[in-house]
Amino acid sequence: MEKFFNPESVVVIGASNSPFNLGATICNILKDYLDYTGAVYVVNSKGEQVNGCPGFSSVPALSAVPDMAIIIVAARHVPGIVRDCAEKGIKRVIIESAGFAEDGAEGAAMQREIDEVAQSSGMRIMGPNCLGTLSTRNKFCSFYGVNPSLVEMNQIFEVPGNISYIIQSGGVVVLVMESLYYDLVGINKVVSIGNKCDVDEADLIDYFQKDETQVIGMYLENVADGRRLMEAAEKSRKPILVFKTGKTPEGAAAATSHTAGMANDDLIFDSACRQAGMIRLKSIDELHSLPKIFTQMPLLKGNRVAMFTNSGAFGSIAADLLAEAGLRMVTLSDRTQAKLKKAGQVFNVKNPVDIGPAPPQTYLDIFEILLAADEVDGLWPLLSVWQTFVIDCLEELLKMCRHYDKPAAIYTPNAISKSIAIRTGRRIPIFETAEQSARALCVSFMFYNSMRKRGGLENCEIFAAPGME
Amino acid sequence: MEKFFNPESVVVIGASNSPFNLGATICNILKDYLDYTGAVYVVNSKGEQVNGCPGFSSVPALSAVPDMAIIIVAARHVPGIVRDCAEKGIKRVIIESAGFAEDGAEGAAMQREIDEVAQSSGMRIMGPNCLGTLSTRNKFCSFYGVNPSLVEMNQIFEVPGNISYIIQSGGVVVLVMESLYYDLVGINKVVSIGNKCDVDEADLIDYFQKDETQVIGMYLENVADGRRLMEAAEKSRKPILVFKTGKTPEGAAAATSHTAGMANDDLIFDSACRQAGMIRLKSIDELHSLPKIFTQMPLLKGNRVAMFTNSGAFGSIAADLLAEAGLRMVTLSDRTQAKLKKAGQVFNVKNPVDIGPAPPQTYLDIFEILLAADEVDGLWPLLSVWQTFVIDCLEELLKMCRHYDKPAAIYTPNAISKSIAIRTGRRIPIFETAEQSARALCVSFMFYNSMRKRGGLENCEIFAAPGME
Repeated sequence: MEKFFNPESVVVIGASNSPFNLGATICNILKDYLDYTGAVYVVNSKGEQVNGCPGFSSVPALSAVPDMAIIIVAARHVPGIVRDCAEKGIKRVIIESAGFAEDGAEGAAMQREIDEVAQSSGMRIMGPNCLGTLSTRNKFCSFYGVNPSLVEMNQIFEVPGNISYIIQSGGVVVLVMESLYYDLVGINKVVSIGNKCDVDEADLIDYFQKDETQVIGMYLENVADGRRLMEAAEKSRKPILVFKTGKTPEGAAAATSHTAGMANDDLIFDSACRQAGMIRLKSIDELHSLPKIFTQMPLLKGNRVAMFTNSGAFGSIAADLLAEAGLRMVTLSDRTQAKLKKAGQVFNVKNPVDIGPAPPQTYLDIFEILLAADEVDGLWPLLSVWQTFVIDCLEELLKMCRHYDKPAAIYTPNAISKSIAIRTGRRIPIFETAEQSARALCVSFMFYNSMRKRGGLENCEIFAAPGME
Repeated sequence: MEKFFNPESVVVIGASNSPFNLGATICNILKDYLDYTGAVYVVNSKGEQVNGCPGFSSVPALSAVPDMAIIIVAARHVPGIVRDCAEKGIKRVIIESAGFAEDGAEGAAMQREIDEVAQSSGMRIMGPNCLGTLSTRNKFCSFYGVNPSLVEMNQIFEVPGNISYIIQSGGVVVLVMESLYYDLVGINKVVSIGNKCDVDEADLIDYFQKDETQVIGMYLENVADGRRLMEAAEKSRKPILVFKTGKTPEGAAAATSHTAGMANDDLIFDSACRQAGMIRLKSIDELHSLPKIFTQMPLLKGNRVAMFTNSGAFGSIAADLLAEAGLRMVTLSDRTQAKLKKAGQVFNVKNPVDIGPAPPQTYLDIFEILLAADEVDGLWPLLSVWQTFVIDCLEELLKMCRHYDKPAAIYTPNAISKSIAIRTGRRIPIFETAEQSARALCVSFMFYNSMRKRGGLENCEIFAAPGME
């Protein structure tokens, strides 16, 4: 599997110099942009070279056996080419072409043909109807149509991170990668698996156990093999965040026309997630918004949360959200309340703690009092940035969270654009909405609980990993 | 009520030259920033002037009777001052001081004292524990602590809009105003009513029927008088979007300590909303994200929605959200499907319509085919901006929506920051999440339905109003 993300040589079958050729965009990103050092061959009817990559008129004609083939030609040609690849001894194939099982009976028949070749030859196949793999550390990318002029794209390869995604659809890949550019966690690997006739989510969960991945995000339109997925998830020592469409009959029908999955029963999937310790997401945006609670904060090790706001309304809003997230508003002890009274400027020393206009030291004192309190498992600051010193205080809060080994899910009730700018500029894990903060605490606690049940707590705390500050 | 937002003269009681004096910040914003042309007086113990505003040592000593008094002194002094104002003949008072019913029995007793003065004198009171009023067109603002250096603040007064807010809490005011700065709808008036011992949400809904307001947004922690609110809402010809905290016992308790409301039964509030045609919001962010569906788009006049995406996954995600929003995926007629086939590049001509890489004309053709179809009541475009021409196409879409008198709830599956930048720069009503788009169509249809039931459809279509392009 490693070589799917880090091949020493590849052939792009279908890359040519015709205008709008999609295969050529793969050669371009590898050669011009990523400075990929492996060999890149191309196959096209003329046998012409593309962007300096040696060209051949067929797979049998190739002068070497590359680690991986990327196929991007009309669907009807694909089964024959896969057979050629098998005969040539190529062990890995990514089929990016669409027009298979998602496109009706004829396509489904072709997909079965491909399956048979794979099974008899032992080659592994990704797709069809997919984008394949991206690896930031190896600077490899098999995606077609990537626009390397996007600043977002640059940053993704410049600053590798530790989140890996298994995504059935290209569109979601773009959303996630762009969004992380405005966040403080980075990408390790992304794989788009499309119709997943062979390599599926279970294979990839297994694979991501052994590399730099810290959090696994999945977007599924259907489940390939429920039992294998559950087995892989149960063994996972890394949090798995999964968004699945098809909750309603309408969504399931739309998914089928997209990546050819059978509409799996949504309730069964829901209980499978609970059983296997996968965290089911409520919105597609949670795929990119929630990982930072794992990489930037200690786990939430109990359900008692203290809130702290400089705007009373948000205490009340947050109390509703916390209850809906299945967590508890902690009842602060008399001792903690007495300390808070001394800190001054506090309107309400009960939870939610509510302060008026106050100097920086008051903020710092309250952070410390709440994190140090035995009855508090985690903190939810809802702090409007009305002066820049609030941002400075949040920076201090990160250190305190590490010291007390308790998380804070920070929300700033400011315009989203402004909150994102602060997050990007100051490297503070700020959530964009109050809902996200509540969910972040919830998923942190879910992961903690499932690891505890399985006896796997020892090595699961990502935040404690060295070098992750 | 009008003079609460547009007084010819005011007195700020409690403004002084002491450091950190909050009353002085009100004088400053009126004099230095808003160029308020009315007279501003101040009352403080020394009788000193503040920022050029003539000072008096008491209310009886005032040389004139201003249209309105703003009181911002320690709570214990407030009842006496209110009495002085009544005797002086001042008809309107905003009490910004906190420390009343939200603060326990003693505060509640003071609040009752104030009530009695108001009732016997006929004066109207806003607050206590509030910020008062802001009016963009009159350039008036009674809020304390406003930082006029905020760019967001500038823009709000520079470009008046047509959304008016009734908000119980100052913190939510800041969130909403900042967020609208990054949106394409503007503010008409904002009023923060705090503990609302006299003027309440019902008074303000009535008042906003007669001015430039097109959409009313409300943040409530409790309901002052359910019957009056329902009567006002039932008469409203303008959509009322309301977010109420206290859904859970935890939230209700937090609200009580904030603005002293009794925890009203949430289920009763829910059914009251349905009965009176108020639209209950699901998140605080909907207060600023949803109004644009009313001001920038025709109403949704049926529940049949067509989706159009250039990324198949989003069709499937959207289908789930649409079903959850209570709307219907329209079944496209054979005629419409045949037209879509001719448009070319279409992967799926059934709803959701799904296209691959395609030129601008294909986008425009599909917009036109779907909006022109009799079976389609509204459009949900989910279009990733992978080339800038997609933005140009969306601009054309706005004109087509107007022509066909059907709305489009545009979502761009890009990073939120990027979508917001396009929205602000190009004046296209883009929603930040798929959830928001679905909700926008839902609330548009809810308002249409409630107006139809009441026979009030004729003048309720905001978008058709002249001069609103």
